[in-house]
Amino acid sequence: MQFGHDEKTLDLVAKVEAFMDAEVYPAEGILKQQIEENVANDRWTFPPIVMELRAKAKAQGLWNFFDPSENGAGLTNLQYAPIAEITGRSIQMAPAVFNCAAPDTGNMEVLSMFGTDEQKKRWLEPLLAGDIRSAFAMTEPQVASSDATNIELSIVRDGDDYVINGRKWWITGAMNPDCKIFIVMGKTDPDADRHRQQSMILVERDTPGLEIIRGMHVFGYHDRDHGGHAEMRFTDVRVPASNLIAGEGEGFAIAQARLGPGRIHHCMRSLGIAERAVEMMSRRALERVAFGKPIADQGVVRDWIAESRVKIEQLRLLTLKAAWLMDTAGNKAAHTEIQAIKIATPQTVEWILDKAIQVHGAGGLSQDFPLAEWFAGMRTLRFADGPDEVHKNALARAEIKKYK
Amino acid sequence: MQFGHDEKTLDLVAKVEAFMDAEVYPAEGILKQQIEENVANDRWTFPPIVMELRAKAKAQGLWNFFDPSENGAGLTNLQYAPIAEITGRSIQMAPAVFNCAAPDTGNMEVLSMFGTDEQKKRWLEPLLAGDIRSAFAMTEPQVASSDATNIELSIVRDGDDYVINGRKWWITGAMNPDCKIFIVMGKTDPDADRHRQQSMILVERDTPGLEIIRGMHVFGYHDRDHGGHAEMRFTDVRVPASNLIAGEGEGFAIAQARLGPGRIHHCMRSLGIAERAVEMMSRRALERVAFGKPIADQGVVRDWIAESRVKIEQLRLLTLKAAWLMDTAGNKAAHTEIQAIKIATPQTVEWILDKAIQVHGAGGLSQDFPLAEWFAGMRTLRFADGPDEVHKNALARAEIKKYK
Amino acid sequence: MQFGHDEKTLDLVAKVEAFMDAEVYPAEGILKQQIEENVANDRWTFPPIVMELRAKAKAQGLWNFFDPSENGAGLTNLQYAPIAEITGRSIQMAPAVFNCAAPDTGNMEVLSMFGTDEQKKRWLEPLLAGDIRSAFAMTEPQVASSDATNIELSIVRDGDDYVINGRKWWITGAMNPDCKIFIVMGKTDPDADRHRQQSMILVERDTPGLEIIRGMHVFGYHDRDHGGHAEMRFTDVRVPASNLIAGEGEGFAIAQARLGPGRIHHCMRSLGIAERAVEMMSRRALERVAFGKPIADQGVVRDWIAESRVKIEQLRLLTLKAAWLMDTAGNKAAHTEIQAIKIATPQTVEWILDKAIQVHGAGGLSQDFPLAEWFAGMRTLRFADGPDEVHKNALARAEIKKYK
Amino acid sequence: MQFGHDEKTLDLVAKVEAFMDAEVYPAEGILKQQIEENVANDRWTFPPIVMELRAKAKAQGLWNFFDPSENGAGLTNLQYAPIAEITGRSIQMAPAVFNCAAPDTGNMEVLSMFGTDEQKKRWLEPLLAGDIRSAFAMTEPQVASSDATNIELSIVRDGDDYVINGRKWWITGAMNPDCKIFIVMGKTDPDADRHRQQSMILVERDTPGLEIIRGMHVFGYHDRDHGGHAEMRFTDVRVPASNLIAGEGEGFAIAQARLGPGRIHHCMRSLGIAERAVEMMSRRALERVAFGKPIADQGVVRDWIAESRVKIEQLRLLTLKAAWLMDTAGNKAAHTEIQAIKIATPQTVEWILDKAIQVHGAGGLSQDFPLAEWFAGMRTLRFADGPDEVHKNALARAEIKKYK
Repeated sequence: MQFGHDEKTLDLVAKVEAFMDAEVYPAEGILKQQIEENVANDRWTFPPIVMELRAKAKAQGLWNFFDPSENGAGLTNLQYAPIAEITGRSIQMAPAVFNCAAPDTGNMEVLSMFGTDEQKKRWLEPLLAGDIRSAFAMTEPQVASSDATNIELSIVRDGDDYVINGRKWWITGAMNPDCKIFIVMGKTDPDADRHRQQSMILVERDTPGLEIIRGMHVFGYHDRDHGGHAEMRFTDVRVPASNLIAGEGEGFAIAQARLGPGRIHHCMRSLGIAERAVEMMSRRALERVAFGKPIADQGVVRDWIAESRVKIEQLRLLTLKAAWLMDTAGNKAAHTEIQAIKIATPQTVEWILDKAIQVHGAGGLSQDFPLAEWFAGMRTLRFADGPDEVHKNALARAEIKKYK
Repeated sequence: MQFGHDEKTLDLVAKVEAFMDAEVYPAEGILKQQIEENVANDRWTFPPIVMELRAKAKAQGLWNFFDPSENGAGLTNLQYAPIAEITGRSIQMAPAVFNCAAPDTGNMEVLSMFGTDEQKKRWLEPLLAGDIRSAFAMTEPQVASSDATNIELSIVRDGDDYVINGRKWWITGAMNPDCKIFIVMGKTDPDADRHRQQSMILVERDTPGLEIIRGMHVFGYHDRDHGGHAEMRFTDVRVPASNLIAGEGEGFAIAQARLGPGRIHHCMRSLGIAERAVEMMSRRALERVAFGKPIADQGVVRDWIAESRVKIEQLRLLTLKAAWLMDTAGNKAAHTEIQAIKIATPQTVEWILDKAIQVHGAGGLSQDFPLAEWFAGMRTLRFADGPDEVHKNALARAEIKKYK
Repeated sequence: MQFGHDEKTLDLVAKVEAFMDAEVYPAEGILKQQIEENVANDRWTFPPIVMELRAKAKAQGLWNFFDPSENGAGLTNLQYAPIAEITGRSIQMAPAVFNCAAPDTGNMEVLSMFGTDEQKKRWLEPLLAGDIRSAFAMTEPQVASSDATNIELSIVRDGDDYVINGRKWWITGAMNPDCKIFIVMGKTDPDADRHRQQSMILVERDTPGLEIIRGMHVFGYHDRDHGGHAEMRFTDVRVPASNLIAGEGEGFAIAQARLGPGRIHHCMRSLGIAERAVEMMSRRALERVAFGKPIADQGVVRDWIAESRVKIEQLRLLTLKAAWLMDTAGNKAAHTEIQAIKIATPQTVEWILDKAIQVHGAGGLSQDFPLAEWFAGMRTLRFADGPDEVHKNALARAEIKKYK
Repeated sequence: MQFGHDEKTLDLVAKVEAFMDAEVYPAEGILKQQIEENVANDRWTFPPIVMELRAKAKAQGLWNFFDPSENGAGLTNLQYAPIAEITGRSIQMAPAVFNCAAPDTGNMEVLSMFGTDEQKKRWLEPLLAGDIRSAFAMTEPQVASSDATNIELSIVRDGDDYVINGRKWWITGAMNPDCKIFIVMGKTDPDADRHRQQSMILVERDTPGLEIIRGMHVFGYHDRDHGGHAEMRFTDVRVPASNLIAGEGEGFAIAQARLGPGRIHHCMRSLGIAERAVEMMSRRALERVAFGKPIADQGVVRDWIAESRVKIEQLRLLTLKAAWLMDTAGNKAAHTEIQAIKIATPQTVEWILDKAIQVHGAGGLSQDFPLAEWFAGMRTLRFADGPDEVHKNALARAEIKKYK
């Protein structure tokens, strides 16, 4: 195990930190105001400040760090980890600013790995350039989505086309009109083997029969910073057969390939949220006085801060190990570690955010601090690609199997 | 200890349950829609359905249950407990429907106990009639509000008037234009004894110099069902000296008198939320199928449901004991018990809501179920009239003192 | 619900407290020494001080409080609750001193309810008199004992006798040579209905073929204060048919009848342990100084003490409710509440003991304080008549069923 | 950060594992019996099987792995980590078998770093050879030992001697008559600066005035596998001045130097305990059947196993990071990480052991499995060199300081 940061990484970290200090942190207030304006005017596009900073970051070559190929920064997972963590410190803006935001990153990886040249030209290139956005349509409202075989949306071949019918929800980013392309998971063959029934297909936003019904809320947030989470309906949506990705029956395999990096990126960024929360908690504890002394002198507050530090250190190391393993042994070999961080991250960071909120008093729950919104986002990770309980069950089964 | 429900209570419980079944539960969908309209149109008044049901409830005499005097239902705390719990099951509507919603209830008690005849006539009567609403302005943005001596808003005598200057926030209900009267806590004498510095004074909404600045959000929610939580500024606000409640220096004592019932009512209603959450969790677990069986058959889900039941039973009994003690020995003698339920309630009900959300999948966090919004509300109780940590500290001090 | 203590109870409480103050607490040091002598000399009888105090208590009529019949104190469960709690404060001695210790209490109840006149004369009378002790042989080493149908010990009719073969372990009290009589659960008819296969039979200590193999340890304790926990082997043990209790196939029903009171008595006494722990923790926190102040001034210690108080209050009320329900509606109607206290008690009191130990420093784990030994005892309750998980599962099933 | 195991380490790991498989695991049953004989005969020496295996291990050169100098295996902390972990899997025997048991290891380090040539010759050499054992006498019964300035034992210069008076307890290993030498911490100058008041001095077992009073128990265990934990009294104990280590006033500095490696070795071994517990829990879950299926199929049991795995992975990485930091940046630079593992280890491993016990049923608490004894040992780590709360407080202070 080798988790150290090489010079390339340290160099990038320094550049990203400099950009954060110069551009991103100072703009957080503006972003908050522009998100409120988005809400007031029922808009779902990136707030203008994000577009501005994207242009600046791109101009400076601080762009597409997530992308391990020659199209992007060419970083390994281990190299990307500290950079993704830094972007997590300003989670509502920084990932988008560097074109490293989900779900675009995962979608670009899918196109990069499985797309035809034509698919790459039409959708990967503008995504890499940051000219359009994308969404990944997998979860369905009527079924437990942790079980992939439950998927009901149908994709039926008809001549040179496929015809799509069904419903999706929690399609992140899809409310944004700049989200021009959807990767849609559905069933092409209900009679095939369990993991060969599904396929993925590309659907453009303006295709007839595709309706964006509404944005799902998370707690009371719309998540208008990144295009929200849409409920969608597909009624006889017809796309050319060339929009299929990889081949019929490849949907499950593509989903698996996409999940590993997607999960670990969430965890990396969550570490940045946790670090920022500890910083905010410490600063607030120093400046807030109750009963004659700063609350930083309260034993209970110190206990929270110490536990937070101990928890973060452990979580970061586990994340780095998973990254290193993915780099050196492949995503499949890192399966248990990826599951482990998927389980450990939300419970740890939720705990820290809860304490940071408590140190901030009622203000900690309000729009004056980002803590409650971060908590809401972290809470969703306990569902993201399947509830934690499903993953714990699988991880335990693997553990027990060693002794069979 | 005698916690049984007498016939009067059982009779009222039956009537309230009948009303809930006939009118309130069926209207929850309408309410949700009307709250969304309030948000979309930046309105803060009671949604129309609440006004309708208030009229119906009042017509049936299901009104002012909270009020132990002859003006109301004349119930003891113990008698009120099961009724308040039932209203908690539809927390966004039922308390208001029966004119039993905070902060009006506490304000009516203050006026009832400490108001002059004139004050009662002008403000208590329309409040009891449900014609206006009220707010209680205590918390301030710049100081730790758990320490009452920190209060900075000034109330200065000037001839026949008092002149008020300062800021308040988290003033629940104040965004509602029907909130016509504020009970404002401030300092009349910074040099008096620690608990004689504060006074309470009545300020009408349209008094010059009073500004309602904005609504505070809680996890993204505006709480537009009940008039939100305002930030307010008082600039040379002038009111007649007859608006003072009880007398100069009585502010702290009035606040104490108000807190006991206020806290226990929150706890009673929270039990209703918890019960509803267990019901929702059970129903969902029965109907949702994953990996070939309903998740009600999953051991982990059952563990959550069992723990929820065990926790609720204990919490309800503690709440009933506090109520009984307040009735028989007085609020002061019940101090420890009131503190205990203030500490126990949010941590217990938060835990249950978190599990209920998990059983509902991502939908549990969205606008399709009320669970996340209940969680947000419950989270605020850990700050309501002082963070739990302050109360635990005081409770421990009292416990340790026994052995000094 | 009516949990108040009537005059009879208060009168007894005062007498028992007076006896505790005068005789029991002052003798705790002697007891500790005599238990150490028991260990050193491999003796399992009651330490002499217990025999002395038993005589005194009996002489004063402070005897058999547990027994609801005219043979004992004639107390309801609710009346017995505070008395049992007080005895829990000196758990290694007080229950035995008043002839209220498990498993004798449960065994006397079985004989009282189901015994023939002859059985009563031979075994119930000397037990009530405190002249002998008894044990209840149910758990078996090879099978999961939470599932009663797993029981393997065989009881076979042979002429006027029954012949018994099998193994038992964790048979509390059985190492004590004064334990003269065993109630043994076994199978008489493996082909009968699930709950009609088992029978209970009386076996005297000196019956040929009955071997007491060894004492089971709990953590490192032998529990020599009360006769330990034996592993036993039955090899062709022959007893007269008149030793059968109630009838063939009645074993399961008798066990159920015995369990309700047995469980709640454990919970009542555990409350006494918890209260004593809070007292010890508070006293120690007052007297121990670190870094310039008593640790009672440490926020974390206060947090523990406050949480302990809040938890105890809730647990006691739940226990009282279960007692009251057993008295007024019967043990069967109180099933859920009995399960709830069985689940809630050990987890609550373990938590409190853990904190009390921490406040005592390393000494808290040693023979200088009883806290670690109490912890060990409390830990066993999570297994007593079935692991908590089995009970939680059943309780949840009942809860969910309401919504089917 | 580089945590990988180099070839030297992997080679040693293979040899140690082979020895464990061939000699140690098969002897665990014998050890248990011999410890019982120790108890029965009030003996405190190493059980014969340990002496046998020590001879074998030494003959094979599997010896003194802990020692980073040329006297021992010359391993870094990182290299030692996996080996110490393996010995933790049979914690009552393996560390002693390889002459890697506390407190000898720490004492040898003290002598190695600070001893004079004469001191090394007389005591370090036989310790390295395994011919004698040693103890470290620091904790005192009357004071909070987490605050080093509280130490009361006096060391007074008198001519060519020092005279020692005072009490100590929890002196691990001291009950063993083969424990020939004590390193004793005491005060030489109460008026010096806070951290210059203490000195360390060597005292031989048979020095007049030194009394071994009794063995302290831990949850009923005597810990006779390693010489227990003694209470000691020093009455005018006179030793030559040349027995002083390093110099007057150096006691605190020596203690600090000793603590770093001491703590991390505990954590490394605890990982071995945790891994063994997960293995036992998994095996038991596979073989125990309740209600018709192995309890490995119970969701709650799986949840425990999954959480155990996730926790262990994080804890091990944190321990490796601390080891690596000690190796590369020094013990002082690794201060926070050493504190972090000191805090994280016992709470994590206690949790896992508790669940492993629960899976084993009541047997899990008994002498038939080592789980309860491991739990007892792990519980003591929450006090070892200061309660966790003291360390959390210090760690938080350092964290908060970053933002001052």
